[in-house]
Amino acid sequence: MINKHIGPQTVALASPPSVVAFSNIGGKLESKGPLAAYFDELSQDSFFGADTWEKGESVMQERVLRRALKKAGMEARDLDYVLAGDLLNQCIGTSFGLRSFHIPFYGLYGACSTMGESLSLGAMLIDGGFASFIAALTSSHFCTAERQYRMPVPYGNQRTPTAQWTATAAGCCILGAQGDGPYVTHVTCGRIVDKGITDANNMGAAMAPAAYDTLRAHFQATGTSPADYDLVLTGDLGALGHEIVTDFFRQDGVDMTKNYRDCGMLLYDLEAQDMHAGGSGCGCCAATLNGYLLGGMRAHKWERILFCPTGALLSPVSSSQGQSIPGICHAVCLSNTK
Amino acid sequence: MINKHIGPQTVALASPPSVVAFSNIGGKLESKGPLAAYFDELSQDSFFGADTWEKGESVMQERVLRRALKKAGMEARDLDYVLAGDLLNQCIGTSFGLRSFHIPFYGLYGACSTMGESLSLGAMLIDGGFASFIAALTSSHFCTAERQYRMPVPYGNQRTPTAQWTATAAGCCILGAQGDGPYVTHVTCGRIVDKGITDANNMGAAMAPAAYDTLRAHFQATGTSPADYDLVLTGDLGALGHEIVTDFFRQDGVDMTKNYRDCGMLLYDLEAQDMHAGGSGCGCCAATLNGYLLGGMRAHKWERILFCPTGALLSPVSSSQGQSIPGICHAVCLSNTK
Repeated sequence: MINKHIGPQTVALASPPSVVAFSNIGGKLESKGPLAAYFDELSQDSFFGADTWEKGESVMQERVLRRALKKAGMEARDLDYVLAGDLLNQCIGTSFGLRSFHIPFYGLYGACSTMGESLSLGAMLIDGGFASFIAALTSSHFCTAERQYRMPVPYGNQRTPTAQWTATAAGCCILGAQGDGPYVTHVTCGRIVDKGITDANNMGAAMAPAAYDTLRAHFQATGTSPADYDLVLTGDLGALGHEIVTDFFRQDGVDMTKNYRDCGMLLYDLEAQDMHAGGSGCGCCAATLNGYLLGGMRAHKWERILFCPTGALLSPVSSSQGQSIPGICHAVCLSNTK
Repeated sequence: MINKHIGPQTVALASPPSVVAFSNIGGKLESKGPLAAYFDELSQDSFFGADTWEKGESVMQERVLRRALKKAGMEARDLDYVLAGDLLNQCIGTSFGLRSFHIPFYGLYGACSTMGESLSLGAMLIDGGFASFIAALTSSHFCTAERQYRMPVPYGNQRTPTAQWTATAAGCCILGAQGDGPYVTHVTCGRIVDKGITDANNMGAAMAPAAYDTLRAHFQATGTSPADYDLVLTGDLGALGHEIVTDFFRQDGVDMTKNYRDCGMLLYDLEAQDMHAGGSGCGCCAATLNGYLLGGMRAHKWERILFCPTGALLSPVSSSQGQSIPGICHAVCLSNTK
């Protein structure tokens, strides 16, 4: 058996799986942000035609998978697996969004790291010979997340400066054993990191140590530095978390200032849209990847990116019981060359 | 690239990974059930020494992983991945239970199918060359599940005859690329199946169609029938779900009456312990597998078993919004010979 591990958390794919098709969907605020032109669909209806926001989130997952399949010229039965999850309790955005497709399904919970986790596991299933095609997808919805994690939306709860805005968005990526790229060349699996942050309105600070931990592991295992990538992206650390990661690496003598971005800072115009620290939610980096980023790679704007979604593994119950906020980050290297 | 698919949902592992060690833990009612002798640890304290039940559930996961590592003569750093999840919102049983180990972590949400999902993905990661050792684990806790899904425990809510009892238990299995077995020879990935059952007190009926779907796919792909296994086990369908699955197969001319059991009917004495339809929860089949079943295989009581945990992918929110209950079932074939 070939050992594909090149470091304690990192594997190099022997036959890097290819992106076959990708799709995204967003809501009203995403339609007013700087990445609006990179969406397949933007809805002004926060219910997406359904009668509750939770059902609307499922509609997003259903549509984004259906569109990705169409772009790939595939039917649902052509997929060997779908790997997906979301932020809702018991991941109902996913289970109800996908139930009509009848695709073999592995449900994931990685909080906002789900797009990285689903791509990682999907790429390994293909490279291991267990699948020809997989779909990786996730979603988030401002209104479902807000009432589950914080306050019912009609309360008009005031937000702190470090707070982030959960994106109403979903993204889907179909990977295949064959294709013209971009290719998944490496994946780095994150560890749970908890530095004791307890402020649930400051997720950026809670998740930044996990991003640092995974990025450092990835750079070490692959013998690369940020300069070897056209872009290094975290998922939704926001402005504060982005600054913390940059600072951590500065202390190691590693310069992240040139090409390190955070999807939570790309999806919205933080000032003009009054987004405080930036976007968040599984859908934030999923929609950014499966539109702006993969589209840019196909247009050769970027040749190699390191995509590193971060997740905060808390719940309202854990916070109310005085627990701090564990974070995790999964890194995926996407390259136009194998 | 070798294609290891032998059917639409089923793969045969090229180098079947081996069980290296296993461990389980249970609570008070489990200590009074017929499988009590097959537990590594039984606690009369429902808090497991912690100050809340949720923290107690995390303690179960922590202890069961620590004990499995000890039995294997391994350190946490020897594991390439841990694959785990639980029933709690945002899977906090897992994230807080595992955070002190610093093992690369992929979080799963498969409801009560999690033990099957974690073994399946773990076996494929090893067989694909991505890992030498993985740990698959999950837990459930009667008191955390009851107050999250139904009513606060002190209400003394009356239960319907079809209701099941969430096991307070956890199980962990360490798989390795080398070992003396039992071996994971095949895995069959389930599809989401929803036949429109809406009664959240009748999970057995809701999940039985998913179990039938996965078992049928497995038998077809492998060219086997129930008679080819010493035991065929579902996870926690309980008495009613067990009867439904048996009936479905009877209609196909397949006899399940000889060796088909359900872990929810093994863990407790349904009559004497007033368990209604039987045990449920991720921990029910996880604790049964990682004690009674794997122990029995090592003692050559059984040589080949088909382990098929089932999950109900609902939430209280989906039920209150009038949604039916989607089910899923993941099958894992364990054999003493490769």
